[in-house]
Amino acid sequence: MKDNPYSSVTEDVAAAIVEICGATNVLYDHSAKMDRYARDQVSEKKYAHPPELVAKPRTVDEVRRILGLAHRKRIPVTPRGAGSGLSGGAVPVYGGICLSLERMNSILEIDTDNLVGIVEPGVITRDFDRELQKHGLFFAGYPLSREICFLGGNVAENAGGGRAVKYGVTSHYITGLEMVTPDGEVVRFGGKRFKDVTGYSMLQLLIGSEGTLGVFTKIWIRLVPRPRYRMVLLALFEDVDCATGAIPQVMIEGRIVPSAIEFMDRLCFQEACKSLGESLPYEQAGASLLFEVDGSHLTSVSEECGTIEEICRKSGAVQVFAVSEPDQMERFWKIRERIPWVLRSFGSHQTAEDIVIPVSSIPRLLEETERIAETYGIVIANFGHAGDGNFHTTPIKNPDQSEEQWDAIIPEILTELYRIVAELGGTISGEHGIGHKRKRYMPLVMGEAELKMMRAIKNALDPLKIMNPGKIFD
Amino acid sequence: MKDNPYSSVTEDVAAAIVEICGATNVLYDHSAKMDRYARDQVSEKKYAHPPELVAKPRTVDEVRRILGLAHRKRIPVTPRGAGSGLSGGAVPVYGGICLSLERMNSILEIDTDNLVGIVEPGVITRDFDRELQKHGLFFAGYPLSREICFLGGNVAENAGGGRAVKYGVTSHYITGLEMVTPDGEVVRFGGKRFKDVTGYSMLQLLIGSEGTLGVFTKIWIRLVPRPRYRMVLLALFEDVDCATGAIPQVMIEGRIVPSAIEFMDRLCFQEACKSLGESLPYEQAGASLLFEVDGSHLTSVSEECGTIEEICRKSGAVQVFAVSEPDQMERFWKIRERIPWVLRSFGSHQTAEDIVIPVSSIPRLLEETERIAETYGIVIANFGHAGDGNFHTTPIKNPDQSEEQWDAIIPEILTELYRIVAELGGTISGEHGIGHKRKRYMPLVMGEAELKMMRAIKNALDPLKIMNPGKIFD
Repeated sequence: MKDNPYSSVTEDVAAAIVEICGATNVLYDHSAKMDRYARDQVSEKKYAHPPELVAKPRTVDEVRRILGLAHRKRIPVTPRGAGSGLSGGAVPVYGGICLSLERMNSILEIDTDNLVGIVEPGVITRDFDRELQKHGLFFAGYPLSREICFLGGNVAENAGGGRAVKYGVTSHYITGLEMVTPDGEVVRFGGKRFKDVTGYSMLQLLIGSEGTLGVFTKIWIRLVPRPRYRMVLLALFEDVDCATGAIPQVMIEGRIVPSAIEFMDRLCFQEACKSLGESLPYEQAGASLLFEVDGSHLTSVSEECGTIEEICRKSGAVQVFAVSEPDQMERFWKIRERIPWVLRSFGSHQTAEDIVIPVSSIPRLLEETERIAETYGIVIANFGHAGDGNFHTTPIKNPDQSEEQWDAIIPEILTELYRIVAELGGTISGEHGIGHKRKRYMPLVMGEAELKMMRAIKNALDPLKIMNPGKIFD
Repeated sequence: MKDNPYSSVTEDVAAAIVEICGATNVLYDHSAKMDRYARDQVSEKKYAHPPELVAKPRTVDEVRRILGLAHRKRIPVTPRGAGSGLSGGAVPVYGGICLSLERMNSILEIDTDNLVGIVEPGVITRDFDRELQKHGLFFAGYPLSREICFLGGNVAENAGGGRAVKYGVTSHYITGLEMVTPDGEVVRFGGKRFKDVTGYSMLQLLIGSEGTLGVFTKIWIRLVPRPRYRMVLLALFEDVDCATGAIPQVMIEGRIVPSAIEFMDRLCFQEACKSLGESLPYEQAGASLLFEVDGSHLTSVSEECGTIEEICRKSGAVQVFAVSEPDQMERFWKIRERIPWVLRSFGSHQTAEDIVIPVSSIPRLLEETERIAETYGIVIANFGHAGDGNFHTTPIKNPDQSEEQWDAIIPEILTELYRIVAELGGTISGEHGIGHKRKRYMPLVMGEAELKMMRAIKNALDPLKIMNPGKIFD
């Protein structure tokens, strides 16, 4: 990186970190083992950058000592969860230390009396949910990457996911955080309590701060009773307008807040179905919606499902499939979950976006992305969490374009897309974060006065700027 | 106040503010009209302090100009909503300007397509809810003082209320804020969107910041479909243990999250019933619980109510009344809502607390408050939002004690109470805020490192410290 104001990881520093974590938990040899710490799930290679050293602490005390050392030497520290992020947030763009939380992976407590779980940041979301299932509980704020993502990363990015429309995002469920500050102090905000106005909401400020204000070492999570019943409804529409028209009707006319409303455009749905060898009549679908409803009463869940079916049919659905058998529900969800992976098979020159707009503007967004795609001669795939207007719009390079052409047009495409999003009252990231990838576009959706306030907070809490530098803003 | 580092409101400043707001919207004559701006709903007179001037702006531009002036002159500004707070948050302890938002009271938009309302801060919560009712919508995050409190105040304190156990507190519903910064700039965070990770969660930091970081001038509120059906269940128990035992069972065994679980001890319930001329057999109640369940399906609501009744009876309820007629539901809620007013009739020497503890520790809390009451020869009333462990524990002066005795023991009583709360993993305020009243007790529940971070944020965003000084911390 240009103008690197930081110190390098010297042999002495490496030795001190080996002293703290143990030799087997430090990588400092530029071996192939270190490669995966240079990137996250952003497909474009230009966003990769290797760390100088990877440290894998096991305890808060080890984290504290590493940060204390990094602070004294002014070495940048980039915390890393599973590396499943989509904004380059865990990429050490200034080198330095990659602080991987992979070994801090214990579920410390599941308190069924108070409905709170306490975990370390390296616990995989799915593992936590499996454990909760035994107690009839669940953690509602999980992203669709739950098979791989870490809870610490969910908190750092304020992850959303497929059920946010009913259950809200990660921040709604985090009731406490233990964190090591950039100068190596251990602080704690919140705990086993569901209301807390003791001074500023530091907890909420830290959630979604993308590892730029400290390293989370312990997380308190509010648990909710696992709904007894669940139904999934897949509706195939002739075109986009019919599909998007049904979304507000479900909530307003139906007075139903489904646990999921997912949108899939023609390309996404058909490619995912093909890739799964799906027997559904996917050729009929100009656009599809996947709904999930849940609750503690079978009658109400199936009544709600019936109401949604009715609304979809009125809105012009050509086919509606409502299912309640677990394997059938999983089958439909798999189509939705397959999409990002299917799109990736189109090559690494694509950009998975994360825009948010008001629900009523969805038709306009889809029109505009079609227009942009035509202008630049590319394909733009659209899918995502329609219930809260969060779309993973994905521009994909035309195979006929050169890499240079692609690199030249992509900033133009994103600028155009983001300007539309801003005009519609939306923003450029709903759940993936700004990270390294989107920071240059922040001024499109945020004024200088607002950015100044954010920078003031960064300066106040990390004056040496060693925590995950190069992210969110410069 | 000792060591007042601020400038006074001179004739010139007053004239400039008259110029901004108009003469009829400024009070600067120390008349009786100004008296009510010297206090909020904290009953103890020692927490009152008059402003030097009251300004009642109508527009964001007027707020901007007043703050710009105050900033240049270094005059403290205390924003004020309805004055219904319970922590001295709206009391201008350093004098200066009281900035009353009472005239900024328009409902600007109710967007039924996107389920978002936009309001000015001076809108009364109940007025907003009445408007929403027409559209089959509601704002779930409202406090029990909804007849008088302003939405701006709810946001400034991150108010909770009777339905937080199911719907969450105010912060869960605020999707955007327009604010004037302490130096008179207009900023905006969020808007009509339900997910937003564009940089730091400034929105969440500002919510609950008690007017110490700026003045809110416009608020975006997420709306939810109004539940079609509602039932209220009042359960009278022989003693406290039976009552508190039922609370976790409802959520864990019943897998039900009621929209309210309110606790009333013997004194509170009986005095409220008497004051209302209530015919219920209140003498039988050693403690009572009020539950509310709601939903879009009659069958599920009445099934849930039946399950709760069963659990209460198993837990030793002596009487259970389940009602669904609106006037009967209102009748039971009135008992709960009457409590703070009934307690006030015991005199102004009492302190309405707002502690939060894990639900499983409720029996221990009630034991300890009984012990403290005996030690100091006083009465301590207990009532509150049991579903989230938020208790409005209220120590009340014994009529035989002198005012001096009371003033001497109350810091001891609160210190003892707060130490227990801290030991149980709780905190000293769940929804009323720290304000002026509780700031000296902050170190009992928060370490120096945590307080240092909060102070760093205050310094970063209000370096001259003109916004609501003397609140939260010094």
